[in-house]
This record gives sequence, structure tokens and C-alpha cells, in this order.
Amino acid sequence: MSNPSVRELPLLEPDGAAVPCCPPLTAGELSPEDADRMAAMFKALSDPVRLRLFSRVASHPGGEACVCDIADVGVSQPTVSHHLKRLREAGLLTAERRGTWVYYRVAPSVVAAMSAMLDLRSRP
Amino acid sequence: MSNPSVRELPLLEPDGAAVPCCPPLTAGELSPEDADRMAAMFKALSDPVRLRLFSRVASHPGGEACVCDIADVGVSQPTVSHHLKRLREAGLLTAERRGTWVYYRVAPSVVAAMSAMLDLRSRP
Repeated sequence: MSNPSVRELPLLEPDGAAVPCCPPLTAGELSPEDADRMAAMFKALSDPVRLRLFSRVASHPGGEACVCDIADVGVSQPTVSHHLKRLREAGLLTAERRGTWVYYRVAPSVVAAMSAMLDLRSRP
Repeated sequence: MSNPSVRELPLLEPDGAAVPCCPPLTAGELSPEDADRMAAMFKALSDPVRLRLFSRVASHPGGEACVCDIADVGVSQPTVSHHLKRLREAGLLTAERRGTWVYYRVAPSVVAAMSAMLDLRSRP
């Protein structure tokens, strides 16, 4: 994972150390900077086709999917590519080219952190 | 799609009755209808000012906030009203007028369901 935009968003590093983005929405007032970061992550999932592509990767056996496995969502190939790029830029998917195809994986720490942001049990 | 996992993560109506939105993103292929619904919820949180307003309500003591408590986010009052309306329309906030002011509350079942959608532990 050498995509620099990925580095800006993950909430947990691979070794499990916490980084400061982002607090639960119930924890207190959000800083404008955290709000910008978090809104960008939610925006990545705010399009139905993007959400279906993300779900296809997330639910694929082994947690990894070739673009050839997931692209049949009723839009053109360039549109699929655009949406997958948006998901990568938001840090929600990682991509790796192997031979002819690009394989996508969900970035589990980013998605888990989005889930934690919405965890109302953390209400003070 | 008659994905049985849809039933496992219902949103709850105020009276406790389950409605069928939405499965975890890892549970399998999303129907276009579920994708539309879920994308609309994520879209509601995809704007930084909206996210800050939502967080102010969610973190307010007692889980309820008067619009007079939360409106100071650096945008005009009509813009605040517009964003609060979007959050209500998406089902993330409920509103009640009492006297002069409108009071907002987070809709906990909707937000919990969004969190559950992003729970990768449900991966098959």
C-alpha cells in the first residue's frame, strides 16, 4: 500500500497503533479538520454504484476481488474505474496489479474506524 | 435478492418494528434498492458542516440539543436549517418543536444500523 492518499486516512496503522483520525461522532465537538476527513470517507460511500462495488469486494470470498469479478453493475467500464479510483483515494480499498488484472481489497482499519465513529455507545 | 442476513440488522421504527434496511456491506451483493437507501444515509454525513452539526447533537448532554445550542458552526442560519433538514430527511435526526425552539435528537437505531453495515466481522 504505497498510495499516499491512503496514508492520510487510516485510523489504525497495520500494527494496531491508533492514529488521530477520527473520534466517534458522540465524543464531543468535531474539529473542522476531522470533519473534512470524515466527510470525505462518508462521501466515498454516498453513491449507490460505488456502494455496490465496495460491497462486492467486501463480500467476495477471501476479501479480495478482481475487477473482472465485480464490474458487472450496469455501468460502463470507465465509470467502474472512476468509482474504484474514488474508493481507493478515500482509503477504503487498496489495489494491487497482478498480471492482467487489478485486485481490490477492503482496507479493514479504515472501515472499522468508520463503524466506530458511528458507535453511539461511546456517548459521554 | 432474498438475502436472509438482511433480517439480522434491521433498522427499528420508533415502535420497535423492524424494517428491512440494510445488510452489512460484507454480507453479499447489495440490491440496487438497498444501495440507494444506504447511499442516501452516507450522503447525509458526506458534508463537513452537516457532520459537525450531527456530532454536536450526538455529543450533547442527554443526547438532545436545541438548535440554539448547535448553530454556531460558521455558516448562515438558513444554511444550518438546510443541513438539519437533510439530516432529518435521511432519518439520522429527529426534531421536536417545544415553545420557541426546535430540539434535535440522534435516531439511535438508524445510526447503529449504519455502524453495523460497516462491521467487517460479519464477513462470510
